[in-house]
Amino acid sequence: MAEKIVSPAVLERLPTYLSYLRSVPADVINISSASIARALGLGEVLVRKDLAAICDIGKPKVGYCVTELICVIEGFLGYNRTDAAIIVGAGKLGQALLDYDGFSNYGMNIIAAFDIKPEVTGITPGGKPVLALSELPAFCREHNIRIGIITVPAARAQEACDLMIDCGIRAVMNFAPIHLTARKSVLIKNENIAISLALLSKRYTEQLNEENGVY
Amino acid sequence: MAEKIVSPAVLERLPTYLSYLRSVPADVINISSASIARALGLGEVLVRKDLAAICDIGKPKVGYCVTELICVIEGFLGYNRTDAAIIVGAGKLGQALLDYDGFSNYGMNIIAAFDIKPEVTGITPGGKPVLALSELPAFCREHNIRIGIITVPAARAQEACDLMIDCGIRAVMNFAPIHLTARKSVLIKNENIAISLALLSKRYTEQLNEENGVY
Repeated sequence: MAEKIVSPAVLERLPTYLSYLRSVPADVINISSASIARALGLGEVLVRKDLAAICDIGKPKVGYCVTELICVIEGFLGYNRTDAAIIVGAGKLGQALLDYDGFSNYGMNIIAAFDIKPEVTGITPGGKPVLALSELPAFCREHNIRIGIITVPAARAQEACDLMIDCGIRAVMNFAPIHLTARKSVLIKNENIAISLALLSKRYTEQLNEENGVY
Repeated sequence: MAEKIVSPAVLERLPTYLSYLRSVPADVINISSASIARALGLGEVLVRKDLAAICDIGKPKVGYCVTELICVIEGFLGYNRTDAAIIVGAGKLGQALLDYDGFSNYGMNIIAAFDIKPEVTGITPGGKPVLALSELPAFCREHNIRIGIITVPAARAQEACDLMIDCGIRAVMNFAPIHLTARKSVLIKNENIAISLALLSKRYTEQLNEENGVY
């Protein structure tokens, strides 16, 4: 059966539902869309529509069986199979991500990092390899890697991105604070933590001004 | 003068414009909305509207003066003043963020991290202090901290969040893979890197299936 396709907005909300459902006490067997909506500050109709887009396990007056719904969302998001990814840039952030053990809950496994500096190559405290950047092409071929993470400085990020694409990588998560270009078929997701933090600060300031009647 | 308020969608796009404008070669004096739109894969009307929402420096047939537009966006996003933030959780990710020097480009300064484990307290290689968690209340009072980052394990994240709010923090960026609850006036931004990576992988798989005619 062909998989259902949902809109990007729904796709972005599904992990939030999942994260909430995983936090529900174990003695809660069934949960209503109203309860989910209330807990997450979303509209009930929205929640019902989002979940209807991926399954039909909701029952009138009963709601959703929590474990079943978790299973359905995990399956839909692909968390039940494991995708391998690599990192280019084994600085502090790169190594933190490489050794972070939470990816497996989301069906992801970061199997190695690569760096141009010989002094950082070796095995991390978490037991993962940091290899020379020159080994990237052979490694990607051997492990059929399609997903890569960039944690190099901004000045080296485009070069890292081009190299990854040459190695067959087709989805790139970029932590470097720079706009990367790639051909259309390559997915690039920018994760600029500094920008996110600055936006949060901006929203806080706006909220504060509103409360104080500046507007 | 009261500041302009723009929609969250515009606010999210402004850093992308800024990042692109900063990457434009120095000999480009003026730039058109069409050029910006093309480089970022956005619609020209959208770009023009977004920029009109925060300034009126665009001139017909000339476009925007690049340095002036950078200055306007930086000012609007508050990158020209510096907001102090703290981190709770000085594990690998916490320390990587604490020592990352790119926050200052976005008007943010992470001035200290706090941890419950005595063995991680001290001064980081980047010269930032990691303090005992018990020092958080006094530190937040003294430095008037309103923004905090959570990089503790999921099981301790709600507790860390509650403590931060008790200390006067009103905007929380949460890296722990758990749904946090707080009263409405507190802003919580979840930055689950594993979820982002899994979504990227899911989008890649969908694109691949589409190319291969599975749908």
